[in-house]
Amino acid sequence: MKPTSVSNRQSTLLRKLNKKKYRHKEKLFLIEGDRAVQQVITNSAISVRALFFDENQQYWRDERWAEAAQQVDVSVMDEALFAEVSDTDNPQGVLAICEMPQETTITDLQSQKGIILALDALQDPGNLGTIIRTASWFGATGILSGKGTVDLFNPKVVRATAGATGSVPHLNGNLSALLKELQKEGWPVFMLDTGEGAESLSDIASVDKAIIVVGNEAHGIQADLQAVPLRRIRIAPPQKNVQVESLNAAIATSIALYELTATLK
Amino acid sequence: MKPTSVSNRQSTLLRKLNKKKYRHKEKLFLIEGDRAVQQVITNSAISVRALFFDENQQYWRDERWAEAAQQVDVSVMDEALFAEVSDTDNPQGVLAICEMPQETTITDLQSQKGIILALDALQDPGNLGTIIRTASWFGATGILSGKGTVDLFNPKVVRATAGATGSVPHLNGNLSALLKELQKEGWPVFMLDTGEGAESLSDIASVDKAIIVVGNEAHGIQADLQAVPLRRIRIAPPQKNVQVESLNAAIATSIALYELTATLK
Repeated sequence: MKPTSVSNRQSTLLRKLNKKKYRHKEKLFLIEGDRAVQQVITNSAISVRALFFDENQQYWRDERWAEAAQQVDVSVMDEALFAEVSDTDNPQGVLAICEMPQETTITDLQSQKGIILALDALQDPGNLGTIIRTASWFGATGILSGKGTVDLFNPKVVRATAGATGSVPHLNGNLSALLKELQKEGWPVFMLDTGEGAESLSDIASVDKAIIVVGNEAHGIQADLQAVPLRRIRIAPPQKNVQVESLNAAIATSIALYELTATLK
Repeated sequence: MKPTSVSNRQSTLLRKLNKKKYRHKEKLFLIEGDRAVQQVITNSAISVRALFFDENQQYWRDERWAEAAQQVDVSVMDEALFAEVSDTDNPQGVLAICEMPQETTITDLQSQKGIILALDALQDPGNLGTIIRTASWFGATGILSGKGTVDLFNPKVVRATAGATGSVPHLNGNLSALLKELQKEGWPVFMLDTGEGAESLSDIASVDKAIIVVGNEAHGIQADLQAVPLRRIRIAPPQKNVQVESLNAAIATSIALYELTATLK
């Protein structure tokens, strides 16, 4: 392959795509790193628009990229520009511009079964990416993303999904409104809580569908969600004295996904 | 309180404690940040040796530190020195030197029941810290740390434990030797695996004790462990087509801890 040098238009686009506003305006996002880009190339859920390499690393000469290069534009850029558009401290020298998958609709979600995650002001990109990865593993029906939740297509989130970006239907919106629409169709809403008054996760009887609400790492759920009727559930520790205040948000969500997926009728 | 300026001896010690070698030589480690330091002060498992504040932030004037200051040395330092000894990009202006808790012994572990985690070359500090936090929540019996596993008292690990550092008995050593010693006393060894030939985690019958071996994030378990007789277990996805290759190591470990803790006799 003979890649061309990156154009000014492309380098401007790459810089812009590090910002949420432009990602959603252009309906494009970035994926970085050898393994992640290889995964997205072989992943039917996401279309790759263009590939970029750091020219000094001669990385693009690797024959693993040959097939992809026949289907999308490939450009090279110098190390300084690569470092500038990269979101990582140690860029691996390859990144892809990808097309953002379309959002699902509330009507589509209403008609389904399974588990939906509702993320309320979840702020840590690593936690969000890990939750998307776990949701993909357990075949979750959808992910609702409320106000204050980090962008699902943020580069750090995308990295933490380990290839799961786009594999779970997602919908951004006002969480309390979305939850009410789903409740109309019989979806029960559970909220992860650390309080002792909550029901134990392991006591939840078999369900055919369920929503798990995940609150902010430090502050729990926001005020407007407190008006939504929901059941508080808790991952109860077996012993009386627990030194740590809570589980990590991604861990608690994943355990709840595991347990409720297993109870699905 | 009237804190003194940090001495040269102390600032040298603080710098050294960012290195594993010195932490284990001095049997001391660092905890940084408001919440984490408050937690360790109220945490009986860990002794605080000294507290340090960024003098410019006037943070040490907060009365929340008054009681602790009566029991340990308190020093202030300028912002530049604080930034140098801090492991974080945005230091919060408070850190503590703490005494490393003593290791447990294989004899002590042999005589117990419950769940022991065995970490084989686990390299991500965030994953390790999160695993310690989850192990503390579920009251795990112990954590074995093998060659190549990041230091349990690394500042990034300590931060990710969210106050759980020191709350689970730990032992560093040759994992295959330690596992054999425990097997002699009837401890079954399970290893997390993503292969389809492995037993499903949810099919494991009730146990009174179990060891969960966790491999490296990218490369699985090391060669010398493969000679240890163990049962491969897998967190099976419910659907046939799974887009993502595996679960995150901390997520898989936490789900296994949750499930096996629930089956404990």
